[in-house]
Amino acid sequence: MTRAESRRFSLAEIVAQLGGELVGDPDFRVRGIASLEKAGPAEISFLSQGRYRSRLRTTRAGALVLHRSEREASALPRILCEDPYAYFARLSMLMHPPEQPQPGVHPSAVIDPGARVARSASVGPGCHVGKDAKIGERVVLGSGCIVGEGANIGDDSLLHPNVVVCRGCAIGRRALVQAGAVIGSDGFGIAMHEGRWVRIAQVGRVVVGDDVEIGACTSIDRGTLDDTVIEDGVKLDNQIQIGHNVRVGAHTAMAGCVGVAGSAKIGRYCTIGGGAIILGHLEIADHVHISAGTLISKSIREPGTYTGAYPFQNNRDWARSAVLLRNIEKLEARIRLLEDATAGRKEDKEDKEDKEDKEDKEDKEDKEDKE
Amino acid sequence: MTRAESRRFSLAEIVAQLGGELVGDPDFRVRGIASLEKAGPAEISFLSQGRYRSRLRTTRAGALVLHRSEREASALPRILCEDPYAYFARLSMLMHPPEQPQPGVHPSAVIDPGARVARSASVGPGCHVGKDAKIGERVVLGSGCIVGEGANIGDDSLLHPNVVVCRGCAIGRRALVQAGAVIGSDGFGIAMHEGRWVRIAQVGRVVVGDDVEIGACTSIDRGTLDDTVIEDGVKLDNQIQIGHNVRVGAHTAMAGCVGVAGSAKIGRYCTIGGGAIILGHLEIADHVHISAGTLISKSIREPGTYTGAYPFQNNRDWARSAVLLRNIEKLEARIRLLEDATAGRKEDKEDKEDKEDKEDKEDKEDKEDKE
Amino acid sequence: MTRAESRRFSLAEIVAQLGGELVGDPDFRVRGIASLEKAGPAEISFLSQGRYRSRLRTTRAGALVLHRSEREASALPRILCEDPYAYFARLSMLMHPPEQPQPGVHPSAVIDPGARVARSASVGPGCHVGKDAKIGERVVLGSGCIVGEGANIGDDSLLHPNVVVCRGCAIGRRALVQAGAVIGSDGFGIAMHEGRWVRIAQVGRVVVGDDVEIGACTSIDRGTLDDTVIEDGVKLDNQIQIGHNVRVGAHTAMAGCVGVAGSAKIGRYCTIGGGAIILGHLEIADHVHISAGTLISKSIREPGTYTGAYPFQNNRDWARSAVLLRNIEKLEARIRLLEDATAGRKEDKEDKEDKEDKEDKEDKEDKEDKE
Repeated sequence: MTRAESRRFSLAEIVAQLGGELVGDPDFRVRGIASLEKAGPAEISFLSQGRYRSRLRTTRAGALVLHRSEREASALPRILCEDPYAYFARLSMLMHPPEQPQPGVHPSAVIDPGARVARSASVGPGCHVGKDAKIGERVVLGSGCIVGEGANIGDDSLLHPNVVVCRGCAIGRRALVQAGAVIGSDGFGIAMHEGRWVRIAQVGRVVVGDDVEIGACTSIDRGTLDDTVIEDGVKLDNQIQIGHNVRVGAHTAMAGCVGVAGSAKIGRYCTIGGGAIILGHLEIADHVHISAGTLISKSIREPGTYTGAYPFQNNRDWARSAVLLRNIEKLEARIRLLEDATAGRKEDKEDKEDKEDKEDKEDKEDKEDKE
Repeated sequence: MTRAESRRFSLAEIVAQLGGELVGDPDFRVRGIASLEKAGPAEISFLSQGRYRSRLRTTRAGALVLHRSEREASALPRILCEDPYAYFARLSMLMHPPEQPQPGVHPSAVIDPGARVARSASVGPGCHVGKDAKIGERVVLGSGCIVGEGANIGDDSLLHPNVVVCRGCAIGRRALVQAGAVIGSDGFGIAMHEGRWVRIAQVGRVVVGDDVEIGACTSIDRGTLDDTVIEDGVKLDNQIQIGHNVRVGAHTAMAGCVGVAGSAKIGRYCTIGGGAIILGHLEIADHVHISAGTLISKSIREPGTYTGAYPFQNNRDWARSAVLLRNIEKLEARIRLLEDATAGRKEDKEDKEDKEDKEDKEDKEDKEDKE
Repeated sequence: MTRAESRRFSLAEIVAQLGGELVGDPDFRVRGIASLEKAGPAEISFLSQGRYRSRLRTTRAGALVLHRSEREASALPRILCEDPYAYFARLSMLMHPPEQPQPGVHPSAVIDPGARVARSASVGPGCHVGKDAKIGERVVLGSGCIVGEGANIGDDSLLHPNVVVCRGCAIGRRALVQAGAVIGSDGFGIAMHEGRWVRIAQVGRVVVGDDVEIGACTSIDRGTLDDTVIEDGVKLDNQIQIGHNVRVGAHTAMAGCVGVAGSAKIGRYCTIGGGAIILGHLEIADHVHISAGTLISKSIREPGTYTGAYPFQNNRDWARSAVLLRNIEKLEARIRLLEDATAGRKEDKEDKEDKEDKEDKEDKEDKEDKE
């Protein structure tokens, strides 16, 4: 579970592995990556946003990753590329590969006789792997992980400690699951019957694709009749709730504290900001970007960025704004009165009729919005 | 923890158990439930909302559950009832009853000699049951569950893996607790003293009634001096936070990601939408419905539905709206100027006085609101 | 983990330990603390807020803690002090000290041979302490806690069950960590590269100061290159998410369900209300108070209270307000038209120019706001 001590890499080695154009000494060796502010002479740094350009003058880094257009922005040994931030990401994984623990099952782990655990897998102390569960090649189960009956963990997946994968659920290859995540809890399905809530059996599974990341304390509910589906390459941060029967499209990323209610269908390549809430039984198109703190209450059919966050103020200003907002109907009524008074004076009948037409149209749009 | 393979049920058996009026072959057998879209010929489906009625024509289901008024809507064998959705819920539990694991304590579980575990209970691998704790009849503790000193788990309750029930807390009968939930964490009680936070001892318990469900990664704090109380039939989804000294009235249901601050008293038969935040030291009447994403900042005395969510827009429109909202006082000032100008021209003094009276009244209401 | 049965304290003993002025019988003994409403004759109660003063007449408490100004408010034996609420906090800890479990490592716990566990520490059933980890004097690890390789738990810290402290992270002295918390999960660092998310290695740590509390199911991510830092005396409630590279200043307190995105720097002595979301890469000054449910989208340089919560209404009123809010640009346009009409009639050119100047200035401010 620990990362190997990073070894020194020459710039030539780095470019050979990751591409980019090298300017300067190919034999210059770096042993780590750091920010422009904190890097020392044995470290490589990068500039991904123009607003930090001034830091190039003061950095103590030994080498740099820069955009092609910044070729002359520094005299340090440097690698030029199209996207320094993505280059930094790939370089970080090259220099800090996850350490592979020794294969084998810790003697304190409980493996059901009917489970299949690959010889190359590593199962930590206190794990429990249930009947008919399958643990793939090179999988790492951190301490205290629980893999329910019939569940399947794909090759090369890494589960941090205390992850629970419930009965029958399937995780793809190369998953990275942070501590305390729960995959396959029962969905929240209840119906009122004679004054009491009756439970609805949740007999679907959670099916997770390849290359998915799931954050700490994140929970994903199993489907009711069908499955909850997390497609390939989805990235979920911590403290996220995914309801039953949800489908999250490939390569969509969600920041922390997002809640997705049951049966929502979210497209591919979407990004969902922290704390956003997506209501249930709606659809979100591919390439939709939801801002942090936004409540999505109806389907979104067009790509784009969508926001619905109350702008914060100092508390006194907010209190006055909030009162006016809550009484915004009264503001509108006052405007209407003024318009009537003005129009009356003007005797400009045509003008007024135009306005009314416009308002009718607005009202109609608004009504549609509310549905 | 797994569900029994569902056996085939004849429609006559179903009606004998759950009621309803049978139209068609009483010996027709179904082996599962599915949606109208996905059901096959050996499955029963249901229509709960009129907007899916067109699917009755295309479904491949073998039998249906319909509202009494839909008697002629299909020629398939069908069960007519008052509430097809509740019928579906009950039918799902009839056809997919939770499988009861073998009674007994797994050898890797640690049971304090002073604990009492019913012979009919099933305690999974890696569980820990503390001193003086009591595990009732037919209780199932999933792998890795921890039941603290003196805690009590009522008969027929099912705790999924890695649930923590802290010292002294009491869970009623037939509870269903999802993985990773924490019941009885210390409440967040602190007081500032000489520039440092001083902790307040949290010596109350959490007391949970019968037939309660608690979602994955949900946390319920113990009371400070008195108890935190979750009454009978309450249903809590995943990722919910219930603060200390809260009381949640019977049969109230909360969707995922709700936060309830300390000492809030929530009535019976309420529903709280996903991501809503209920502030502390307030009261919510019975039969109150809070919309998703709403912040409740003062008591609600009347039943009804309450909402406070910012309507989302595309980001550019939102940015302009947000600026105007933050400056809504300026809009109001402009209206007031226009009103003064119009009134001045009119020389209609009485009119103006009326308006001022009205505004005084509004201001007073608003001030009350803010308290 | 359990609290000692509270013994009886004389008022003289209490004042000797905690200060304050005693009025009445110094030998009067109390055996517990309770609210004014619930206290019995052997219990001491307190009045911290004026609005409960009427309860002094009806309380059955045997003794009271009051503000110095309330000296004559009751005839009961009483302790007078500057801050009855803080006194109550300290008294609660005096009367209900946490019970110290027996030192020692439970036989079911797995301790790596390279780990150092103080003899005075108590390690519960099913714990796992990794290689090179260090468990300080009198530390208590509840059942199922997992302390990763090289992690460090400071003296006198108490971890409730199922807490995960990941590889290399450091917790200070006297920490109190509630069940299910995760400290040191990988940060959410990803970069898009050729249509796929590439992971960014997270090689920093979480460093937690002294006297910190961390709530149930709360997660704190490790830093990317540098560390995530939680300074001394910080108090975090349940279900909180702290992103990578965040710094939380000393003695800042956050209520439940708060989310803090990566690289945010939060000052000292701040309070953050429940469900608030703090976006990343911003700074918040010392002594800033964020209201519940508020989204903070830019840096806050000045102490004060900041709010951005949509005021809730009954659903019908909200629906109408929300439509007007979403169309607030149209309201503004209507006001502008009226202003033009009025100004036109007035022929008051100077006035209009003044107004335009003012609007230009507003626009400029608003544009700044949006950045």
